[in-house]
Amino acid sequence: MPFVHIEMVEGRTVEQKRELAKRVTEAVAEITNVPADRVHVFFNDMKKEDYANGGTLVLDK
Amino acid sequence: MPFVHIEMVEGRTVEQKRELAKRVTEAVAEITNVPADRVHVFFNDMKKEDYANGGTLVLDK
Amino acid sequence: MPFVHIEMVEGRTVEQKRELAKRVTEAVAEITNVPADRVHVFFNDMKKEDYANGGTLVLDK
Amino acid sequence: MPFVHIEMVEGRTVEQKRELAKRVTEAVAEITNVPADRVHVFFNDMKKEDYANGGTLVLDK
Amino acid sequence: MPFVHIEMVEGRTVEQKRELAKRVTEAVAEITNVPADRVHVFFNDMKKEDYANGGTLVLDK
Amino acid sequence: MPFVHIEMVEGRTVEQKRELAKRVTEAVAEITNVPADRVHVFFNDMKKEDYANGGTLVLDK
Repeated sequence: MPFVHIEMVEGRTVEQKRELAKRVTEAVAEITNVPADRVHVFFNDMKKEDYANGGTLVLDK
Repeated sequence: MPFVHIEMVEGRTVEQKRELAKRVTEAVAEITNVPADRVHVFFNDMKKEDYANGGTLVLDK
Repeated sequence: MPFVHIEMVEGRTVEQKRELAKRVTEAVAEITNVPADRVHVFFNDMKKEDYANGGTLVLDK
Repeated sequence: MPFVHIEMVEGRTVEQKRELAKRVTEAVAEITNVPADRVHVFFNDMKKEDYANGGTLVLDK
Repeated sequence: MPFVHIEMVEGRTVEQKRELAKRVTEAVAEITNVPADRVHVFFNDMKKEDYANGGTLVLDK
Repeated sequence: MPFVHIEMVEGRTVEQKRELAKRVTEAVAEITNVPADRVHVFFNDMKKEDYANGGTLVLDK
């Protein structure tokens, strides 16, 4: 622990995930005072048919 | 906020998700008294090998 | 299944949850064509120190 | 209820999930004293680009 | 990894959680072939007003 | 979106959450190229009886 889950609509590159994992882990380790290797980061890409805001799917926007 | 996550075994159509997003957002906005555009709905389709009830995968039922 | 998780900042009453459970279950059962007793709804109340938007905790808004 | 979610990096077989569903359901039913058919188990396979430990994606290890 | 989340309506004892953590970790480690110290188990107790089945809160059953 | 969930064993201060929300939002907004006000961060504090590693509750370590 800590465990960080990041949900985004699909379309981010592996390079963006790589950088997010690095930056977020640094911030969490530093602020919560734990070694970086105890920080876990998970990504969850959502399809455009799988996220809605205001009652409308992103697919339809 | 509010944030609504809906998990289902795969097989629902985009049209069903579209309607779910609409109906669920209306209900949540009305009952919790927030504008609809602050309601977020997420869908998560599970494969039949990824959900079990009573110790048996849906795949095997 | 289906399983519906609803996350909100704390402050909703039991009566609001009761009505949400009813309305959301009806919508999900009707649209996905499953009996209502197979629909599960979960609520998660977040404290104002536990949700941030735009980098600012709700507590500080 | 209870509801058990199991997240793993992809690569487990259906046979492993089948056995996990069975063993975990037995343990949960027995220890929490509920009938097995009220225990629900969900699997979530993560791609190697979707999990990082120590700031590094599994993909890059 | 693996990561196991167990959601239950409140009322389980610490001793039951202790035993669940042990039994579930053993099953997951053995079946997925990972060392036990890489298995993480999380519990989430739900209040009776926070879980509904068939459109009715457990509180009202 | 994006949505970031951070799970930690209890004991972090509001000030640490405030700083985490700020730093993580900055990183996510910058790397994924979205305005900060579309980034949502959630914290989930786990009790020491609610997290186990290697089959042992943190409470017992």
